[in-house]
Amino acid sequence: MDFFIDATDNNARACTIKTSHSTIKTPVFMPVGTAASVKSLDTVDLRDILQTQIILANTYHLYLRPGDNVVKKLGGLHGFTGYNRSFLTDSGGFQAFSLSDISKANERGIEFQSHIDGSKHFFTPQKVLDIQYNLGSDIMMILDDLVALPATKERLALSVDRTTRWAQESIKYHKKMQAQGIGTNQNIFAIIQGGTDYEFRKKSAMELTALDFDGFAIGGLSVGEENSVMYNTVEFTTPFMPKNKPRYLMGVGTPEDLVECIDRGVDMFDCVMPTRNARNGTIFTSFGRLNIKAAKYKLDQNPIDEACSCYTCQNYTRAYLNHLYRAKELTYYRLASIHNLHYYLTLMKEAREAIEKGEYKAFKKAFYARRQS
Amino acid sequence: MDFFIDATDNNARACTIKTSHSTIKTPVFMPVGTAASVKSLDTVDLRDILQTQIILANTYHLYLRPGDNVVKKLGGLHGFTGYNRSFLTDSGGFQAFSLSDISKANERGIEFQSHIDGSKHFFTPQKVLDIQYNLGSDIMMILDDLVALPATKERLALSVDRTTRWAQESIKYHKKMQAQGIGTNQNIFAIIQGGTDYEFRKKSAMELTALDFDGFAIGGLSVGEENSVMYNTVEFTTPFMPKNKPRYLMGVGTPEDLVECIDRGVDMFDCVMPTRNARNGTIFTSFGRLNIKAAKYKLDQNPIDEACSCYTCQNYTRAYLNHLYRAKELTYYRLASIHNLHYYLTLMKEAREAIEKGEYKAFKKAFYARRQS
Repeated sequence: MDFFIDATDNNARACTIKTSHSTIKTPVFMPVGTAASVKSLDTVDLRDILQTQIILANTYHLYLRPGDNVVKKLGGLHGFTGYNRSFLTDSGGFQAFSLSDISKANERGIEFQSHIDGSKHFFTPQKVLDIQYNLGSDIMMILDDLVALPATKERLALSVDRTTRWAQESIKYHKKMQAQGIGTNQNIFAIIQGGTDYEFRKKSAMELTALDFDGFAIGGLSVGEENSVMYNTVEFTTPFMPKNKPRYLMGVGTPEDLVECIDRGVDMFDCVMPTRNARNGTIFTSFGRLNIKAAKYKLDQNPIDEACSCYTCQNYTRAYLNHLYRAKELTYYRLASIHNLHYYLTLMKEAREAIEKGEYKAFKKAFYARRQS
Repeated sequence: MDFFIDATDNNARACTIKTSHSTIKTPVFMPVGTAASVKSLDTVDLRDILQTQIILANTYHLYLRPGDNVVKKLGGLHGFTGYNRSFLTDSGGFQAFSLSDISKANERGIEFQSHIDGSKHFFTPQKVLDIQYNLGSDIMMILDDLVALPATKERLALSVDRTTRWAQESIKYHKKMQAQGIGTNQNIFAIIQGGTDYEFRKKSAMELTALDFDGFAIGGLSVGEENSVMYNTVEFTTPFMPKNKPRYLMGVGTPEDLVECIDRGVDMFDCVMPTRNARNGTIFTSFGRLNIKAAKYKLDQNPIDEACSCYTCQNYTRAYLNHLYRAKELTYYRLASIHNLHYYLTLMKEAREAIEKGEYKAFKKAFYARRQS
């Protein structure tokens, strides 16, 4: 992976990440393709209509179905889906933790039950890398020890220490595998933990960034804490992350969250919000959120957002989308998802332009000024 | 509406229908867009990927939601959906009859309860035309008196007589409305009833074709009778239908049904089968039906059908579609629907070419020879 900083504006960064599959300009938002499909969209939508350079897929889901060995036989995620740009895969730890009725972490890893058939599984730092070698993702995330917030100091301390031990085990294993010719085009990111406690965040960041990872993520945020607490934690943490490697804030967030965290030095984001909210009728626009199912749109012949150049806004009215939503037509989900993802991706593109021009502060001000809701 | 017979081959016909929105080459299959949306597809899919010249929309559904007055305000079906080719709308009678818990036909029309909110409604021959004027469809179907099969001779006789009386009322009303400048670009088709009884079919056909309709449909078939009985009824009925007007077999059917009924002089078809079956995992191919959820496709890197040039077969493997189906991914529905509709539309195109060459018999033989299931 090549990484260049193209421009900075205070803490905000415009960077370029080159994987063996694509060139990614940051700040970047990565649409979430949980089961190797961004819900309701196909590969052509992602490549040609949305022009994404990187999407995320979930290790937990693909390990359980169709199985990472199946994906490997079909040419990895790229061959399987036909999406020939970059994939980032998470470690599966978050889903093992959140989707399973029974999930137990011990020193060796995380035991969990499949949400599909109840079968028992055990994720270790090595196991989740083996799965990701099979998936063939461009960026792999290592197993970390997640804690629900609020957590006791003892649990946070254990999480940070265990995450570091697992990171050491992961990087050692990855180097060994690469020496054997496995995962040579795959990059590996570690995940900083520590909840909203500054000392723990600092400790986790210092310990992990001492190891030879290709990039670093901030995990364990956006789990119910106040926005300001999340922003402060990010602001506190990024200075401890190396300048010459990508910084990824996992599972975040709203458009406001992205704008704020770019300002605090984050390069990469992922979140189900644009696609999930689309399916629930919440549409993101330059002037804020719009509830497409509202009766007031029944006769509205305008596009969702006059300022939007997306496929959906070029072709359909609010009235038609309102009808499709109310009639529960499958067509609705794709059109709304395209719009919301276009909004997120365009916001990132505009943020980058502002950083390049040294106008991020003005960009942020204009972003808030336009919003009515 | 202009209508030309371009070629015939025994009873099979290759015709051209020109509405004010598009030129339709027959035999034609019309995808069903019940609530002004062919399920999972958008207008661009229909226009650019599938290149349909005509689709069907349901009067009953659109009358109830969003309301035909709403559709009218939004520019009729063409303005509402952005699909600027032809629409055929049914009369709503079939849905009032089949979707409503309580449905009563009397001499004036059909009383029914909405399947959405239980509200009571009454469809009369004039009412369903008024709705279709609001929808602005290119081809309107008149209200007919449907009967479930098997039916008594008395009920069939009543159905045929009532259908004729309603047809007289419909054509009179339509001429009056057109004289007032309403529905001047809209065409009106009558529906021949009579179950599988030849005498009733003949009577219905004779009485209706004496009236000045733009085209004629055969209704009340494909409701559970044996295939051979349906084919025989169609074969018996088409000679009583005028040569110089389109012949439409409503709600039919399988690829085999289409091939057989083209041979018996039918020009137009519609059916939910390709889209509904797609959603249920049944895929149509040149070699017969394929159950995409079968375990044997889990590692199959071939497209659905090597012989198929559709968007889905050009971009995706059976293995990926098998996975998307099993994971219940929304993306699956669109990809499978595109393939099945492409299959139906291509079958019609090939049938037309065969008729033009006077080779329909050989085409039919080859069609069956290729099928394994």
